[in-house]
Amino acid sequence: MTAAAGGPGQRGDAGEYVLGVDSGGSGLRVALGTAGSDVPLATAACAGPVRTGPAGIDAAHLLEQLLPTVRELLARHGGGSRIAAAAIGAAGMATLGDQLRAELPVALADALGVRRLALAADAVTAYAGAVGQRPGAVVAGGTGLIALGTDLTQWRRADGWGHLLGDSGGGAWIGRAGLDAAMRAHDGRRGGSPALLARLEAVFGPAPELPGLLYPRTDRPAVLASFAPEVAACAAHDPVAEGILRDAAGHIAEAAAAVCPKAGADDEECEVALTGGLFRMGDPLLVPLREELARQLPQARAVPGSGDPLIGSLRIAQALATGGLLLPHHPGLLSIPLSGPDQRRDGGVTEQGS
Amino acid sequence: MTAAAGGPGQRGDAGEYVLGVDSGGSGLRVALGTAGSDVPLATAACAGPVRTGPAGIDAAHLLEQLLPTVRELLARHGGGSRIAAAAIGAAGMATLGDQLRAELPVALADALGVRRLALAADAVTAYAGAVGQRPGAVVAGGTGLIALGTDLTQWRRADGWGHLLGDSGGGAWIGRAGLDAAMRAHDGRRGGSPALLARLEAVFGPAPELPGLLYPRTDRPAVLASFAPEVAACAAHDPVAEGILRDAAGHIAEAAAAVCPKAGADDEECEVALTGGLFRMGDPLLVPLREELARQLPQARAVPGSGDPLIGSLRIAQALATGGLLLPHHPGLLSIPLSGPDQRRDGGVTEQGS
Repeated sequence: MTAAAGGPGQRGDAGEYVLGVDSGGSGLRVALGTAGSDVPLATAACAGPVRTGPAGIDAAHLLEQLLPTVRELLARHGGGSRIAAAAIGAAGMATLGDQLRAELPVALADALGVRRLALAADAVTAYAGAVGQRPGAVVAGGTGLIALGTDLTQWRRADGWGHLLGDSGGGAWIGRAGLDAAMRAHDGRRGGSPALLARLEAVFGPAPELPGLLYPRTDRPAVLASFAPEVAACAAHDPVAEGILRDAAGHIAEAAAAVCPKAGADDEECEVALTGGLFRMGDPLLVPLREELARQLPQARAVPGSGDPLIGSLRIAQALATGGLLLPHHPGLLSIPLSGPDQRRDGGVTEQGS
Repeated sequence: MTAAAGGPGQRGDAGEYVLGVDSGGSGLRVALGTAGSDVPLATAACAGPVRTGPAGIDAAHLLEQLLPTVRELLARHGGGSRIAAAAIGAAGMATLGDQLRAELPVALADALGVRRLALAADAVTAYAGAVGQRPGAVVAGGTGLIALGTDLTQWRRADGWGHLLGDSGGGAWIGRAGLDAAMRAHDGRRGGSPALLARLEAVFGPAPELPGLLYPRTDRPAVLASFAPEVAACAAHDPVAEGILRDAAGHIAEAAAAVCPKAGADDEECEVALTGGLFRMGDPLLVPLREELARQLPQARAVPGSGDPLIGSLRIAQALATGGLLLPHHPGLLSIPLSGPDQRRDGGVTEQGS
């Protein structure tokens, strides 16, 4: 980190803007704000999701959607002012973000006058949106499942390895377990659930034809996850479905426990935020999850609120603008390629791993 | 079934040949025999696996490999004699065998004088090879896992639903569970195995890079199954790996129990054969499997011997030649499109489902 971004003394001009961006599977969203307020001045959604090619997330495709949207937001709010700091959060940033890390610093400095830039994994923006700049942990659950925690010195990550290697307790995991139990009932094997078999047949048709429907698809994890709400709907009256959600809750708590900063004192709390569509499944998952968190992570305090990653991006940009970014740098999770007005653009890329 | 094949009175000429064929992922194999002996006169392997296209298993590709091979075997054994009966066993026969069922009867009658023909799923030929024509069950385990049983009135099938919907206890299932435990150790999650993590890193490299190696592959189940022997190798000293194989053994026994014919009397035995590469894993799987079979299926008697599906095909052809086929007909599992010399080829296709 350069001196310009290191100390709390160098604050952004209150008249300057900050920019938060969230790029995910469902689209590209932008929030314009000021360094001084937690509430965005305006938000906008771009045309569609940014393409991922053989070289990773396509930087040019991101810029061609982002720049006109930001210029329009700036024009509506007095135009001409500079972007003091921007934070770009993207799904896949750690593994697919090389092109973004290579091209965005110069492109955003040239096009928008951005002087400070953070590039963040979506789990980091979810963290910032849910927990803010305090120590804690976030579990982001949707089709997949990943947990991220920090003591503000380093990040710890657990799971997020995809539907064949983990994502234990996520939507695809729950749906797959439900379909397995349905096929067991079809076969007369132990562990089968006639209730889940009935739901399988209602949703997909005859059970023996499901393999022919599922395996040719390229979005198999999403197909599996589409069955998770059926498992939740059966849980009240079906012990097999209830057991699947209890197992899922156990796995989710395991991921949270692995990343939660270890308490300095026994009575010190750890904030744990649950974000993402998985947790909209409601009580059938949340009741056993609260029990599992209490068992595995008694120092945890569940954080209310969903933790929008767009708001998280904006918060990171604000912290960057005011020199008050406390979340730890990391090559894949949170990199700061532009850290202040004194930085030479051609050689000043800083990178701090932990 | 026409009268010609129905009664034991009409036996094939002892000078006539019978033909067994096994078409699977690893190739196309042929066995020539006589109706009177259990031992093949000769066997041969064709050039390579039969293609599967959009219309299913490619009948023309099968015939262009099969016919010259059979003619050569016949020439070596006195040439000119007729094929009294043939049985073609193929992986995917139930779901991908439409073209074979449509084209093989006429083609084999014309080219080889075949008068009786059976088309069988590979699980049926494995059954015939391992159990013969008695009631019982077979579990075929490799990358996947399927169980098939019969009381000689109807077939029962369990699992075989692929790596996302079942195949519980098969090679991909064991490998996936082992990799999950390895990633847990990497993350510091509960249920992790440092021993399996060490094997993962020895085989695939750094753990965080495994998703990038696995998910782009089209043969993901085979990649998962390739890790199963590592789980077996760790089982003696690693309780997590041992637990995975114990769970796999439980699932395999569940599949066997679902298809085993119910005993007429309490003391009646049920033959259960275990076939396929999975069981070459040896004691780390077989010891807990024997325990699970004893618990879940106390009337089971494990059949020794591997049950070669090629020998199973030959046995079905022999039974067909002598009018003594006892295994039940089924549209997808065992169909008899040519059943005797009196049958009119243009309209005599018979099909008996159960």
